[in-house]
Parts: sequence; C-alpha cells; structure tokens
Amino acid sequence: MITGKNYIGSQLKGNGDKSYRTFNPQLNIENPWEFTEATQAEIEEAVTLADQAFKIYKNCSGQEKGTFLNAIADEILALGDELLEVYCAESGYPRGRAEGERGRTIFQLRSFAEMLNEGSWVEATIDTAVPDRQPLPKDDLRKMLVPLGPVVVFGSSNFPFAFSTAGGDTASALAAGCPVIVKSHSMHIGTGEMVASAVIKAAKKTHMPEGVFSNLIGSGVVLGTSLVKHPLVKAVGFTGSIKGGRALFDLASQRPEPIPVFAEMGSINPVVILPKALENESKKWAATYAGSITLGTGQFCTNPGLLLAIKGQDLNNFTAQLAEEIEKIAPSCMLHPSIKADFNTGKETLQSQIGVNIVAEYKGEIAPNYASQTILTVDGKTFLENPTLSHEVFGPFSILVQCDDEAQLVSIINQLDGQLTGTIISGDSEIENYEKVTSALQNRVGRMIFNGVPTGVEVCPSMIHGGPYPASSDSRFTAVGIHAVKRWVRPFSFQNWPDKLLPLELQNENPLGISRSVNNKQTHLPIV
Amino acid sequence: MITGKNYIGSQLKGNGDKSYRTFNPQLNIENPWEFTEATQAEIEEAVTLADQAFKIYKNCSGQEKGTFLNAIADEILALGDELLEVYCAESGYPRGRAEGERGRTIFQLRSFAEMLNEGSWVEATIDTAVPDRQPLPKDDLRKMLVPLGPVVVFGSSNFPFAFSTAGGDTASALAAGCPVIVKSHSMHIGTGEMVASAVIKAAKKTHMPEGVFSNLIGSGVVLGTSLVKHPLVKAVGFTGSIKGGRALFDLASQRPEPIPVFAEMGSINPVVILPKALENESKKWAATYAGSITLGTGQFCTNPGLLLAIKGQDLNNFTAQLAEEIEKIAPSCMLHPSIKADFNTGKETLQSQIGVNIVAEYKGEIAPNYASQTILTVDGKTFLENPTLSHEVFGPFSILVQCDDEAQLVSIINQLDGQLTGTIISGDSEIENYEKVTSALQNRVGRMIFNGVPTGVEVCPSMIHGGPYPASSDSRFTAVGIHAVKRWVRPFSFQNWPDKLLPLELQNENPLGISRSVNNKQTHLPIV
Repeated sequence: MITGKNYIGSQLKGNGDKSYRTFNPQLNIENPWEFTEATQAEIEEAVTLADQAFKIYKNCSGQEKGTFLNAIADEILALGDELLEVYCAESGYPRGRAEGERGRTIFQLRSFAEMLNEGSWVEATIDTAVPDRQPLPKDDLRKMLVPLGPVVVFGSSNFPFAFSTAGGDTASALAAGCPVIVKSHSMHIGTGEMVASAVIKAAKKTHMPEGVFSNLIGSGVVLGTSLVKHPLVKAVGFTGSIKGGRALFDLASQRPEPIPVFAEMGSINPVVILPKALENESKKWAATYAGSITLGTGQFCTNPGLLLAIKGQDLNNFTAQLAEEIEKIAPSCMLHPSIKADFNTGKETLQSQIGVNIVAEYKGEIAPNYASQTILTVDGKTFLENPTLSHEVFGPFSILVQCDDEAQLVSIINQLDGQLTGTIISGDSEIENYEKVTSALQNRVGRMIFNGVPTGVEVCPSMIHGGPYPASSDSRFTAVGIHAVKRWVRPFSFQNWPDKLLPLELQNENPLGISRSVNNKQTHLPIV
Repeated sequence: MITGKNYIGSQLKGNGDKSYRTFNPQLNIENPWEFTEATQAEIEEAVTLADQAFKIYKNCSGQEKGTFLNAIADEILALGDELLEVYCAESGYPRGRAEGERGRTIFQLRSFAEMLNEGSWVEATIDTAVPDRQPLPKDDLRKMLVPLGPVVVFGSSNFPFAFSTAGGDTASALAAGCPVIVKSHSMHIGTGEMVASAVIKAAKKTHMPEGVFSNLIGSGVVLGTSLVKHPLVKAVGFTGSIKGGRALFDLASQRPEPIPVFAEMGSINPVVILPKALENESKKWAATYAGSITLGTGQFCTNPGLLLAIKGQDLNNFTAQLAEEIEKIAPSCMLHPSIKADFNTGKETLQSQIGVNIVAEYKGEIAPNYASQTILTVDGKTFLENPTLSHEVFGPFSILVQCDDEAQLVSIINQLDGQLTGTIISGDSEIENYEKVTSALQNRVGRMIFNGVPTGVEVCPSMIHGGPYPASSDSRFTAVGIHAVKRWVRPFSFQNWPDKLLPLELQNENPLGISRSVNNKQTHLPIV
C-alpha cells in the first residue's frame, strides 16, 4: 500500500536518489517503508500543475468543491484500520488518539463542505447603480472573495491527520479554491502518503483538475525553501516551531513578490489561578491541570506551560496537590527520539536557571522515547528578569510562577510574547475584581478561557486558533474553524459588469440563494 | 493658525532644530510657514501616549467612537475656507478639487461613524455550549473583532485630505479602536497640521483619551523608520510609491515581532479595448480616456497608464482620435517640482526605448510644474520583451500597446505585475468571446471595470482598492470602503466566559441589537 513515492498531481513519482525511513517511537525502531525525496524537477512539475489546475479549479462551484471535500473524507475512512496502524507506528500515539484525530479531520472536511454548499461565506457585497446621483452617477459595484492561487501546506509533527496532509490548512485552502501542495512532515510520511492517496482518489472521482493536489517528500530544508520561493506559489500554511515558521515567513517576505504566510507557532498558554480558586477548589484544579499538562504527552500547541498565581499558603497547598496528581499519571510516548531529546534539553535548561525549583517529576522507570512529566516553580521577580524561563518546552511540562501580588502578575502578563490562549481560573465572581489581569491577558492572546483548560480546540466558527506573534505570524486570521478559509482568499470587485457574466454569487437573481449585503442590508432576496 | 509644530497627543511641540517649508507649485515659490521636525524624544512620547491611550480607547463603545469620528468631520468643516486655501497652496490642485476631496474625506469619516453606530461590523459569532455532547461536552465560544493597537499612518502626496491626516487609513484605524500616529506628508504639512488640529479638537470635545492621535513632521526617512520599528506600534498604513511601501514592508517584516503593513502602491491599471468597441465607438472612448488620463494631472493611483488593443486600421483611427483629444486638453499643475521632475524622467526613459513612438504630447507653452500630457505607442512583442515599458509614470501619461492578436494580449496581461484595476472596453456582447482575457485580467487586479474608466474610486462597501502585489502589500484587504477597518483588527474568542463580563456585542441579550451568527444562523435575536 505504501509506495514511498511523491504524488505529483495524480502520478506517483520517485526519481530522486535520497531516501529515508520514519521511526516507530513506541518500538524504538525504524519503520519498514523507504521514502524517496522529491527532486527539483518533481517540485517544479508539482507547482506548474498546481498553477494550471488553478485556472480551472478557481471556477469550480461551491457544490463541486464541497463534493470533493466530502469525497476526501469518505476515502480517508475507506482506508480503514491500516491507516490507523501506520499513524500509530509513525507517531507513538495510542489507537484512541488515532481514531479521535481521524474523526476531527473528517469533521473539518465536512464542515468546509457544508460551508461551500451553503455558499454565503464569499461575503457577497453589492451596491447597485445610482445613475442620477449628483454631481456624478454611481456605477454598480459587486464584491466577493476569490482564491489567491496555489497554496503550500507544511504538515505538523503533532497532528499527523488534523494539521497535516488533508488537515485544516489543506481543507480550508481547497475550500477557498486554491490548489494545494503538501510538504509531508518527515516524521509521518507513510501516514501522509496514505492520506494523499485518499485525496487523489477523491479528486479523480469528482473530476477535479490534475494538479489540484500534490504531496511531496523531503527531509531537509531544500524542499520547503524551493516551494516557498517559487513565483507560482501564492500563500503558505505552516504549523510548527517558532524557528521553522519564522524562517518561512522571512523567505516569503523577502520574495520579489511577498506572499502571505500563516504560521501557527509556539505558545506557553498562560493560566492565571486567582486566590479564591486556590483557597476553595485547589484539589479539583490540580487534578484537572495535571490531566491537561500531560494530555497527548503534552504535545499540544495549547498545552498550559505557564501557571501564574499569587504566593501564599493556598498556593503551596495547590502546588503539593498538583505534584501529587502529576506523579500519579503514567508517562507516555513522545512523537520521535528527536522530540524527546528536545524536551529533555528544554527542561534541563529551565531547571538549571537560578531560582528554579522542581515541584514534580515522574521518577519511575520509563521506556525509551517516553517523557517524564515535570513541573517547576520560580518566584515572580526571577521570572520577570530571566527571559529563558518563558521559553516553550514542547511536552508534558509547566512552570508555576509565584507572584508577589497582582501588580507583579500583570507585569508578567504584559511582558509575555503573544500566545494562542490565556486562561483565568476564578472562584465565584472573583474575576470581577481582576479587570487589569484580564485586560492585560486579552492583549497577549487569541482566545481566553474561563474556568477550564486551554487544551481541546473546538472546531467551530467562533474558535480562534492564532494570536499575537509568535503564537501566529498574522493574528488577523485563525487556523481552526471555517473562517480559516479567509487566509487564502482576497476580496474582488466587479464594476458595471454584465449580469450574466458575473459569478452566480453576484448575479441579480441570486440563483444560489445565499445571504448577501445589498445596499448595506443583509438579505437572501434577489435584486429586482 | 499654522504653528509649524508637531501634535504630540494634544500638545503642540517643536523642540527640534531641523525645519523646512512646503512649496506652492502654482506660484513656483516656497510657502510662508516654517515646520519643525519631530525629535526622537517627541516620537517616543507620541508612541508611548498612543500605547497608554489604547488601554482606554479599545474599550470605547461604537457609539463613542462614532461620535468622535463625526466630530472630526464637523471640525474639519469648521476650518472653512482657510483650510482649502492652504490645501491649494501646498498641492497645486484647483479649488474644486479641494472641495471635492474634503467632501470625500467627510463622507469617509461619517461612513465609519455609521458603521460603528450600527455595530454589526465586529462579526460577532457565537456557538453556545452543549453540556451533554458525547464523547465530550462543548464549551460556549464567542468571537468578535478587536483592535490591534497603535497604528502608524503615512499620508499620501496626491490626496492631502482623503488619504492623509484624517483620511481613510486614519478613519478606519480609529473606527477599529486603534490610536493613530500620522507621519504628515512632507509636501503638505500645513494642511496636515490644520486637519490634525480638527482631530485634536474633536478628541477633546468627545472625551477621548490623550494620545489617541498624534501628528508628526519629518522630511527624511528617520521619522518613518523610527515609528515602524517601535515595539509599541502594531500596524502600518501607507499610500505611495512601490519603493517607499516596500521599504516599510521590509522594516516591519524584519522586526523581532513582525507587524502588518498595508501599503497601497503603484499601478498602471491596464485597459483592454476590444475590436468592436474600436470599430463602432472609438471617438467616444478616445474622448473619455483623454479625460481619465489627464484627470487630476494624472496623479491618481488608478490612472489608466496602459492601453491594450489588437492592431489594425480601427486601432490606428482610435490612436489618432486619442491624440487629437489629448492635445486639446489644457495642461495642469503637478503636486511638486520633484514630482514634475520624476514625471519627465519617467516619460523620457520610456520614450527613449527602442520601438517606442510618440502618439501625442502637448506642444504648447507650459508653466513651471505643469505637465505636458503624453501618449506613447509600441507593438506587443516589444512590450513583452522590455520590462521597462511597464513601469509606472506618475502623471498624465499612457502607453498604447498594439498587440498582434488575442493570444499576445493574454500573454501581456499574464506578465503584468499586480494592479489595482483592470478595464474592458467592449462592443455589444463582444466581451463574451474574450473569456481568456477577462480570466487573465482578474488574476492580476483587485477590481475590474466594464465599459468605464478606472479613475473615480467610489467609497462604498463593495469597493476594493487594493490588489495583488505591488498594487498593495496584502491583497486580502482594501484601503477604501468600510471594510478597510479589517486591516486593523483581529478576531478574538472568549470561551466559557461569564455573560456579564463579555463585551456588549457578545452578551446573551444582544443589548446593541446587532446582527450576529448564533450557532451558524445570522440573527438579531437575543439568546434565551
């Protein structure tokens, strides 16, 4: 089933001479499949095909694109257990996670299909002509969203399904009307190839143009660099580290024609635990947070890596309870030996800073590539003065900062880099007395959670997964939910255009029956 | 009335030792006022004040911000004739243009005020909780647009009112909830100071926080560079040359925290004249385009600088008629001697290319700083092979390309840089046979016009003023119309947030009565 080759459009090709294997972190051995990296000629061919496909695909109707996305979902499901087994072999995640993440991926694809079938997402906006306006007549103007062109998607390490080959970036770009070229994440090329085969099958069944999707293999930076610099590529989606995302952003910004990069990068997701919550519910929150910190071996971009509270006996009690809960949890496997190594290095760097103490660290025997979850603590002044302490440690890790008072808590929040999320844990109505804290937090994050955990990113229209830099490279967009489509489109105006030559979305009769703004009123009615 | 100083918030300051004067191009003499450039300390103070103001201004209601914008419009009108006189003295534009552009500026301010009073622009999106969902409960999630932070606006040379001190960028940023620091355009600092005084008066009258607006003076690159690199600045708006816009984009992209730059830059606005239109209506279109090319001395970003048609006798006739019409028009004054010099250099560079012929050039005596309108012509092959021929010449200028056939026409369009507009001039139903031309044109532009002229940018929600690079630095946004506000905002999610602590826009009762998406249905109803 796994060929080890690239999909250049619908063709499996592997003319290159560099090859490598993926790794099974649970078994601590290489996987059996051999993968061949894309050659420069294959990269060029994939991009050229995408550009040609764009000329046709941009004019596909919402129904046609929706049928394509639903077919991708069907074909992924049709891969059955084999896909889940490959996923587990390349990620170290348990079977339940594989099933859950596949479900999320299917849901994402179907959500975009539903959006396309409904059709109002194009934000059709119409101002009709006023021929007798003084001093000058007003022309008819009609606007809607149109796709940017071929999009390059960099799969993530931590979501082999939901933020990879046919994940949120690909689904949203295809929904927008943009062909997609995926750089398969090197840790799960086999999973990537299987999902790509589902996309290609779906494209054929639904008569999509050749080149609407390609899936390329590359272990170093050459493939990614070639794609981002290619003049026919018009936008980039990325999920991963700050270093990787920033490198792509810089490449894209320095092109003769700069292109947008939406990079969803690092985050330590600060959690503020207010005094009354510590006093009255510390046991509950300690258990909840031990679970959130270790969920998926801590390999979530929304992992709560920073706990902030005001020092005192209640915080001491909470700290002891958190330690107890954390140490109860059996360690789990990380995605790859290199990720485990980075986790250990990151943890040790923070542990070795002056003023840092270990609150909890799993002490039992652990298997290779398993992570020993760790909680550190430090006082507020030390945290403020040492920027290293706010570096992300990717894995089951959190640092608890004991602040002197509310003012210091606010200073710490103000000094943080941009974050995906911020959380407030509050006793009854307590939050009302902490307006400065919430105001400061809102400035630094894309989503605020009340009395909950940041992990678990709901796929729905009101979700923002993104935030001020470096949580994402452009805080004006989200990577999750149907509005993720807005990253790959631009508004376009037709002035005085003949009605029958307009896209259906903008024609007088409103043949699609979508919701439109007509002369500043939102309506489903035709223009008569 | 004109003090020559900077507005650092509401304070007039001019501690610097560099000063200069603006220039009256009609009289060809310096204006009487002396302007003092902002010092580094004054720049720092303006940015710090803007950051402090943001903490308050971001929480102002739509009503409060709308009242502020309407007050700015009132105060600009209250400056009366003196403002128009200074405008004319610093731009060389005639009185009628001054009045028209003031009207446009007032209209823009009032349009944003109306948008704020109505309130639905924040795109409130709500997904209510599903506590009994399996396998996991769903939290309540609510999203709306929130402002980015202090915005720096670079005024344009060619619109001293509408794209400068209180023009579209400033109005949209203030509407978004962002304090604004204007770098006043060095050609019309006096006009800028007077308009700034109106903004400051309006801010005081409507109790806006100190620092919500500053207006700074600087002749070189130091002021702009300092502002764009300042860590407390969160976004930039610019209207001007490709060179200037790209320099700011590069600075902003290379910051430790990159920030969005919306630069509206150059464009030659291709116009395709189809054969039947040449055959049947060439006289009408020759007269219309002679007017469009020379309007405002050709100093519009939507000036039609490139005419494309298929060669033949009909095109020869049109060319002769265009020459006749162009030579009839009395030359007019350019904005500044330096702009006149650039116009001449640009024109001469294109004229001196091999294969280029002069179709028309005003031959009479002209006053200093007046421009002699010019039309050149070249064949399609020469145009395709010489990139210099597609450079913008800012002023009353156009180059007419005689294409061999439709295929060559399409090749030329495909090879063009991104443009603000593209126009098709067509005989009856003729356009229906040119799908390849319109498809190619759509790919290169932000707005397409049928049987009209690109000049005259309507201020309405369905207008796109922007386009693929380098027409603008981010084609996903517009600089004109109420949706220009989207450049300065980001979506923000509240999860499980207490109802009474939510912004009014997201509360269950919908106290503002705005249109919201609730569980994927657009509605004005409260949530019960």
